[in-house]
Amino acid sequence: MAKYSLGIDFGTLSGRALLVNNDTGEELCSASLDYPHGVMSEALPTGEKLGMDWALQHPRDYLDVLYTIVPEVVKKSGVSPDDVTGIGVDFTACTILPCKKDGTPLCFMPEFIHEPNAYVKLWKHHAAQKYATKVNEIASARGEKWLKNYGGKISSEWAIPKIWQVLDEAPEVYDAADTFIEAADWIIWQMCGHEVRNSCCAGYKETWSKKDGFPSKDFFKALDPRLENLTEEKLSDKISPSGSKAGELTEEAAKKLGLKAGTAIANAIIDAHVFVPAVGIAEPGKMLAIMGTSTCHMLLSKEGRFVNGIGGIVEDGILPGFFGYEAGQACVGDHFQWFIENCLPKSYYDEAEKLNMNIHKYLRSKAEKYAPGESGLIALDWWNGNRSCLVDGDLTGMILGMTLSTKPEEIYRALIEATAFGTRVIVENFREHGVPVDEFYAAGGIAKKDPMTMQIYSDILNLPIKIAGSDEGGALGSAILGAVAAGKANGGFDDIYSAAAKLGKVMDFTYEPIKENVEVYDKLYAEYKTLHDYFGKGGNDVMKRLKNIRLSVK
Amino acid sequence: MAKYSLGIDFGTLSGRALLVNNDTGEELCSASLDYPHGVMSEALPTGEKLGMDWALQHPRDYLDVLYTIVPEVVKKSGVSPDDVTGIGVDFTACTILPCKKDGTPLCFMPEFIHEPNAYVKLWKHHAAQKYATKVNEIASARGEKWLKNYGGKISSEWAIPKIWQVLDEAPEVYDAADTFIEAADWIIWQMCGHEVRNSCCAGYKETWSKKDGFPSKDFFKALDPRLENLTEEKLSDKISPSGSKAGELTEEAAKKLGLKAGTAIANAIIDAHVFVPAVGIAEPGKMLAIMGTSTCHMLLSKEGRFVNGIGGIVEDGILPGFFGYEAGQACVGDHFQWFIENCLPKSYYDEAEKLNMNIHKYLRSKAEKYAPGESGLIALDWWNGNRSCLVDGDLTGMILGMTLSTKPEEIYRALIEATAFGTRVIVENFREHGVPVDEFYAAGGIAKKDPMTMQIYSDILNLPIKIAGSDEGGALGSAILGAVAAGKANGGFDDIYSAAAKLGKVMDFTYEPIKENVEVYDKLYAEYKTLHDYFGKGGNDVMKRLKNIRLSVK
Repeated sequence: MAKYSLGIDFGTLSGRALLVNNDTGEELCSASLDYPHGVMSEALPTGEKLGMDWALQHPRDYLDVLYTIVPEVVKKSGVSPDDVTGIGVDFTACTILPCKKDGTPLCFMPEFIHEPNAYVKLWKHHAAQKYATKVNEIASARGEKWLKNYGGKISSEWAIPKIWQVLDEAPEVYDAADTFIEAADWIIWQMCGHEVRNSCCAGYKETWSKKDGFPSKDFFKALDPRLENLTEEKLSDKISPSGSKAGELTEEAAKKLGLKAGTAIANAIIDAHVFVPAVGIAEPGKMLAIMGTSTCHMLLSKEGRFVNGIGGIVEDGILPGFFGYEAGQACVGDHFQWFIENCLPKSYYDEAEKLNMNIHKYLRSKAEKYAPGESGLIALDWWNGNRSCLVDGDLTGMILGMTLSTKPEEIYRALIEATAFGTRVIVENFREHGVPVDEFYAAGGIAKKDPMTMQIYSDILNLPIKIAGSDEGGALGSAILGAVAAGKANGGFDDIYSAAAKLGKVMDFTYEPIKENVEVYDKLYAEYKTLHDYFGKGGNDVMKRLKNIRLSVK
Repeated sequence: MAKYSLGIDFGTLSGRALLVNNDTGEELCSASLDYPHGVMSEALPTGEKLGMDWALQHPRDYLDVLYTIVPEVVKKSGVSPDDVTGIGVDFTACTILPCKKDGTPLCFMPEFIHEPNAYVKLWKHHAAQKYATKVNEIASARGEKWLKNYGGKISSEWAIPKIWQVLDEAPEVYDAADTFIEAADWIIWQMCGHEVRNSCCAGYKETWSKKDGFPSKDFFKALDPRLENLTEEKLSDKISPSGSKAGELTEEAAKKLGLKAGTAIANAIIDAHVFVPAVGIAEPGKMLAIMGTSTCHMLLSKEGRFVNGIGGIVEDGILPGFFGYEAGQACVGDHFQWFIENCLPKSYYDEAEKLNMNIHKYLRSKAEKYAPGESGLIALDWWNGNRSCLVDGDLTGMILGMTLSTKPEEIYRALIEATAFGTRVIVENFREHGVPVDEFYAAGGIAKKDPMTMQIYSDILNLPIKIAGSDEGGALGSAILGAVAAGKANGGFDDIYSAAAKLGKVMDFTYEPIKENVEVYDKLYAEYKTLHDYFGKGGNDVMKRLKNIRLSVK
């Protein structure tokens, strides 16, 4: 009798569940639900206005998703709850909330429903920037060694700045909170009845490492004396690898989910990182890029080497037994969308309409006619700063080579090529630091929908590119974790490596580098790299000076 | 009794005549006529196809213009032909034709009407590029001193490449021609009955100088042995300053023009250079910019200094008694038009339509809201190469500083600023070479119609800018030359200086630099200059390498 695993993917705007056959990898059925409160960036449900750059969520939404879509999927599938033996969850991160020790979010309590700092701070809550800046200054001044695991700088999106903001702006919330917990772990807690923590969120978002734990009390005291005991009082060092078994479904939760009590539950993982097993990666040297508005790159290695300008190096951070490396590009799909919104002339829309074509498709149909190097253009893809390897948010975009004959599609193509050159800088940086990158996988909207871009990436990287095979890659990855938590005895798998190999999916078609294109792009990459270093490494700090002038006249 | 002068302006597509009162400067009336054959770039009137980059004209069109619009203007004005005492002419250049010694163009002769090389080669005939390239190579290899008067390079638009093309492609035309003459001089010849040559065309387009004459026989022999005696056999060294008296109207011509025989006729001038007297400039230190699709800069100086990268230095080239300096920017109005055609999004057209506004005006209304430095952008204005001071057609455009919030109007404004920075490089280059630039005048479409751009220029140059006052600046300048040819005794002027002072016109309004803007633009100019030198002077020849790659893959 076949056994099944359930994966639940909590995104920014909705949640999604998928049921997978552990023997065949078949994706039986899925369901999704938008969060009723969505992203709260203007006001609380009770009407209190929020400040600039706030982004909150309501934890009730996560429960609504859980209790709606899981029973729906199980019912639709016709599978007996007895045969669903494992559950996995992936979640956005750092998406963090203050709780009481029984797991009650503070924002559920009447005394805190009017207090913004009592709600979930979503990953893209950017109102803690001033705390992040102070964390970086102080950590850097103190020579904190953990800082180099994060490219020398942590983001305002991470846990410490967000918690510090709570303490500073709403000390009564801080005092009332027994713990601050990632929504990923909180949702597992709701299912298995006890508090858990996963190594992926802890490593990539909370500055924890398997070897050294959290930063020292001294460091936290240097931030703010009230934070001295933060990690022992409000966090937890009982951290397990994502995908290891967190516990079993309680009677109460089983009832609400339409599943069997005792079903194995895996420790959670971040929604990007879960794509690694979802495409079948379970070994070193295979880089996965999740290509959407921005790109996140993940890579496994047996060794924990320091790699300059890389966003995160976490032992057991993605799969147990490996160091997980994360790098990123801040502007990929956003870059192309900016171009379409701000630079695409009316005549192109008119022509696309006449041909009854989508504007993106029309533009691509024109751009794909060009050979590499034919436009004479080259760009630096820093419209949203550089996240790796320069790690500098003050860098800005550049494009060069325009003539009076330059067409919009040539500029569009140059922007795409620039993001691929940016990826190559990241790949070569890993290699230079002794971390091999031998294969390339891509997931996300661009990987699925844009063959021209993927061929350009293959030509520029001079690597074949495999594309994620599932339309529900996040939920599939979570289902794989669930199958491991269940274990072989329960129709699952005893380790993530065999589960990923069996259930992970890539498309049949692989993009292969085309030799002539590779040769031209090698020359263009040399030009890109020279400009990258000139503008990015102090040869000419014009971008920073222009930003300062801009700030001074505003 | 008031006396009048007639100015005739021969442009690229049409001719225009204007009658001016010598006492008051009043512009009485004007008339214009499009050339019946226009610009012939596809085929001869007899059907013979033309090659790529050809641009011919028919000299009959110039006569049609002359005999149509001059009588029309005289008649409309009600002025007695007796009171029209001087005629001046300006013309595009180098616009050159082969003639018999009686002034008959070869293309009027039955045996040559099917031969493209027998027609007028218009200034923008670019099919002689290979001859220009050879001229430059050979002149440079021989260390020809005259070359440095032209920034080290002559253009395919100039006389020697065009004549060489005739010799090479149609030696029978070359042999049959008694002379090659600028259309400017040919039209004067038709009026005064004898061959004349003006110093403006000869100096700026035929590599002649007052001090050294034409290049040597040896040089021409080195080009092609058949060219050894070119200057004595097919050109003329009887060259007089533009605006000096060329002769008097013949009986025959007077009849056709509806004027009096014996009316004074001035030596002709190039259509751009005639704007210098038209705005009242008759002294050193006042730079005039004619701002249209490209910009031409003119400046008088008492001294003939070598100025690096400047397009032409000609004694008596603009006004007698001065060295006339010419510089240029290859891409100004063209640059802004490129942006509007290739980069302006549909939403802007929709919004402009909703507001019932012209798209240019709508865009400017958005761009003018920005303070200097506020966009954070900076561009190099090399979309059509650099004409001065780098003199390098292989340079291309660059823009830097874009973020995901960058708006089209910010890019548009950065392109305008880039052309103004380019002008400042030219101004500072003159100053560095000891040629003063103290005042700035502007003529042409942009100067008249675009206050935002002119204010930006004033702020970036830190100079007040005066704007040409006449709507018929070319014809007004020619009328001024005509008034000088007539002389004071005939109700005109005895010298160009007093004529220009009296009849030249600027608008009442002057653009004044705004101190706060000047301060910010000084900082931005420093950034522009650094990038200008880095990309333009060998710091990083990426633009040339990209062009080579582009050519190799095409």
